[in-house]
Amino acid sequence: MSKLYQDLCQLVPVEHVSISENDIDVHRIDKWYASADPDVVVFAQTTEQVAAVMCYANKHEVPVYTRGAGVGYVGGCVPVRGGIALSVAQMNKILEVNTGDGVAVVQPGVITGHLQEAAREKGWYYPPDPASLKECSIGGNIATNAGGPRCLKYGVTKQYVLGLEVVTATGEIMRVGGRCHKNKTGFDLTTLMCGSEGMLGIVTEGTLRIIPHPETRAMLGASFIDFSAAAAAVQAILDAGILPSALEITDAFTLAAARDYLGEENLPPGDAYLMVEIDGRVGSVKSELEGLKMLLEDLGALRINEAADEAACEQIWQLRRDFSYSLKHTGLTKLNEDIVVPRSKLVDLVNFARQLQQDTGISVACFGHAGDGNIHTNLMVEDYSDPVIKAKADAAVDKLFTWVLEHDGAITGEHGVGLAKKPWIKQALGPVSYAMHQQIKTALDPKGILNPGKFLDE
Amino acid sequence: MSKLYQDLCQLVPVEHVSISENDIDVHRIDKWYASADPDVVVFAQTTEQVAAVMCYANKHEVPVYTRGAGVGYVGGCVPVRGGIALSVAQMNKILEVNTGDGVAVVQPGVITGHLQEAAREKGWYYPPDPASLKECSIGGNIATNAGGPRCLKYGVTKQYVLGLEVVTATGEIMRVGGRCHKNKTGFDLTTLMCGSEGMLGIVTEGTLRIIPHPETRAMLGASFIDFSAAAAAVQAILDAGILPSALEITDAFTLAAARDYLGEENLPPGDAYLMVEIDGRVGSVKSELEGLKMLLEDLGALRINEAADEAACEQIWQLRRDFSYSLKHTGLTKLNEDIVVPRSKLVDLVNFARQLQQDTGISVACFGHAGDGNIHTNLMVEDYSDPVIKAKADAAVDKLFTWVLEHDGAITGEHGVGLAKKPWIKQALGPVSYAMHQQIKTALDPKGILNPGKFLDE
Repeated sequence: MSKLYQDLCQLVPVEHVSISENDIDVHRIDKWYASADPDVVVFAQTTEQVAAVMCYANKHEVPVYTRGAGVGYVGGCVPVRGGIALSVAQMNKILEVNTGDGVAVVQPGVITGHLQEAAREKGWYYPPDPASLKECSIGGNIATNAGGPRCLKYGVTKQYVLGLEVVTATGEIMRVGGRCHKNKTGFDLTTLMCGSEGMLGIVTEGTLRIIPHPETRAMLGASFIDFSAAAAAVQAILDAGILPSALEITDAFTLAAARDYLGEENLPPGDAYLMVEIDGRVGSVKSELEGLKMLLEDLGALRINEAADEAACEQIWQLRRDFSYSLKHTGLTKLNEDIVVPRSKLVDLVNFARQLQQDTGISVACFGHAGDGNIHTNLMVEDYSDPVIKAKADAAVDKLFTWVLEHDGAITGEHGVGLAKKPWIKQALGPVSYAMHQQIKTALDPKGILNPGKFLDE
Repeated sequence: MSKLYQDLCQLVPVEHVSISENDIDVHRIDKWYASADPDVVVFAQTTEQVAAVMCYANKHEVPVYTRGAGVGYVGGCVPVRGGIALSVAQMNKILEVNTGDGVAVVQPGVITGHLQEAAREKGWYYPPDPASLKECSIGGNIATNAGGPRCLKYGVTKQYVLGLEVVTATGEIMRVGGRCHKNKTGFDLTTLMCGSEGMLGIVTEGTLRIIPHPETRAMLGASFIDFSAAAAAVQAILDAGILPSALEITDAFTLAAARDYLGEENLPPGDAYLMVEIDGRVGSVKSELEGLKMLLEDLGALRINEAADEAACEQIWQLRRDFSYSLKHTGLTKLNEDIVVPRSKLVDLVNFARQLQQDTGISVACFGHAGDGNIHTNLMVEDYSDPVIKAKADAAVDKLFTWVLEHDGAITGEHGVGLAKKPWIKQALGPVSYAMHQQIKTALDPKGILNPGKFLDE
């Protein structure tokens, strides 16, 4: 029994402190590839326990790695310097869904999909919809400022965080923001905590904005002769004054994989596929869908599938999910890079991806949120644990990120920096911004115990 | 000629440095009551000039007060410790309106209304709409994270700021964010700068998100027997799954002033008035307006004015503006407090305002953004420059803010803290958050030269 374990058992009921092999194993990794053992796992049950752990950790300079559902894609919660893996997964209560105030108050371990369902039961809506919403948690969503397809119309996680309870690096309990829908009281510490990847504080409660649920939604799935035609349609839809709730694009490589997996006959023709979702009142959605269909026909769509209600939409979304499965079905490992480009550079990106594929021999599949330029660019590699293959893949990712940064893009739109994007963070931020990151980090976490070894450490 | 003036003339062309009585007079005050003379006024023309001034100011520990259009409501830019009034009003170019990327790139002195018009000419939309949009500037909007009626549906300024060029306290030029619609690269310094009231950096350029302009809008103006009935209608509209683009409420005092000013016959009956604006496609708006009208009738609206297109909407908005003029017409000084309450407490707030009026003899007019609980609570006082009246008014404001904070409200939703709300900031933030504000301020502005004397200084 280490001293750390024994000390923590004084602060947190012993049944919530673990050094079991199984718990260590689970907490050494997220959905990315890096892994490292924590010395101890703490399953916090209350804010006060988190505060007690942080007081102790700060005093003794013990690294603390906060973890929600552990489904991050960049190794953000991996305890690279050992210490404490602080799980908030069991702080998973929806404390309140209050339609009168338009807020939901939740603990960080609440699964995002559960919150959506709880709001929906009352006719209200929590829009942020990361693809992993059935397994990811609100705490992780806040830590990475998670996005999703519907963020095009509705905005990302930070736009729904009205207030937070945060335990600071020194173990104090802080409330920022609150349950008001507007708040200009001081600096925007609420949003600073959003996306801070466990490096500035530990979120122990969130007060989230919910909005009236749109009465219905509808979708069109349209195939085009090539990616350029589909990208042109994206811009034409927006230029027509339409802001869809989602606008998803898929490239030729992904479609080919889907044809292979689902059968040629189950996929539309063409080398690009566009999904457009709209929502609103029943009558409005019906008439708008008609107009949108005509617009897509004018834009040269080869075939259009129409989903006139929510159940039918689900089928088109299933196709979207099947694209992911199709890529997995190739037997290759999918390195999913959530890059973003200015929307006018969608075609340039896909052309670059084709060139990258030619130059490196690594297949590249592009699909994602076309409306906001956030295209998941998937490098399909063989065994990533093979050092030779890994080196080749990493070199290809480097080429991709270099191109993205040279074209005013961002190396991460949704997943965060974590370990995966750490090698590029200085280049991405530039020296002045990087220095300001350091200044803020040092001011708020003077001993550097919150998630050390990530993008602000050498 | 002071040494400061002479030194600044070495850094900035002499014609852009002023100690003229007129320039000093203009730069000693905003729209609030406090005033203080700057030693020198600098009219920056370029980012490099701003950087040179900051390098100098940091070295010599000279206070710098950044100023946009000077239409703030809380004394936020008042140079209470002298030094340099740094005007960015002449950095007023719209550099780009790029619908392909969905961004506008602007200098900080651009008038908000001009940006809206420039976007509109291309069929696109910059939604944040502070009441002063014809005279306020984007720099000031960013500094205060400005709101407005349409923020109910579309969100406040920060939700449109994708990237910033910022000159730091030490005179370095920093770029944060960019022209991507999603960006998770590091901490959200872009949003930290939004609403930082000139205390953390100087914004010299903004890259703002624009969206497709809704095809049309329509409005209903509905009068109700009392405020409770109108507030109940607000909730009923949202519960029906409708998210209006604006939802404005007016109380009995304001209506009485308007009747006095505009004539009884020009105002609807009832002691509360609700304005509901919706926007979208022409066909949709038409059918939704019909449904909304039936809903308001069911909710007991006494009379409903219908505005079926944008031109007609403008008439209802004119009535909204006339409410302000009516209050001015009373001959009293309007102390406009932009408080926010959780939406379910709208009626409690107005009841409290009535009680406050009885207790203090100061009339209180409430109107504003009902959908997000942001009710402008106007204390109508006689000569505010009279110390006796001022003391009485200040005591009433203190009662109001104390009540607001006790009821989970915010003392400012749109205007910022500045000098006006400084006495309540510690109470509003709580000790841990206040300390974190200090830590960040000290880290980013170690010599305390950016807007000193405001809410983080004793």
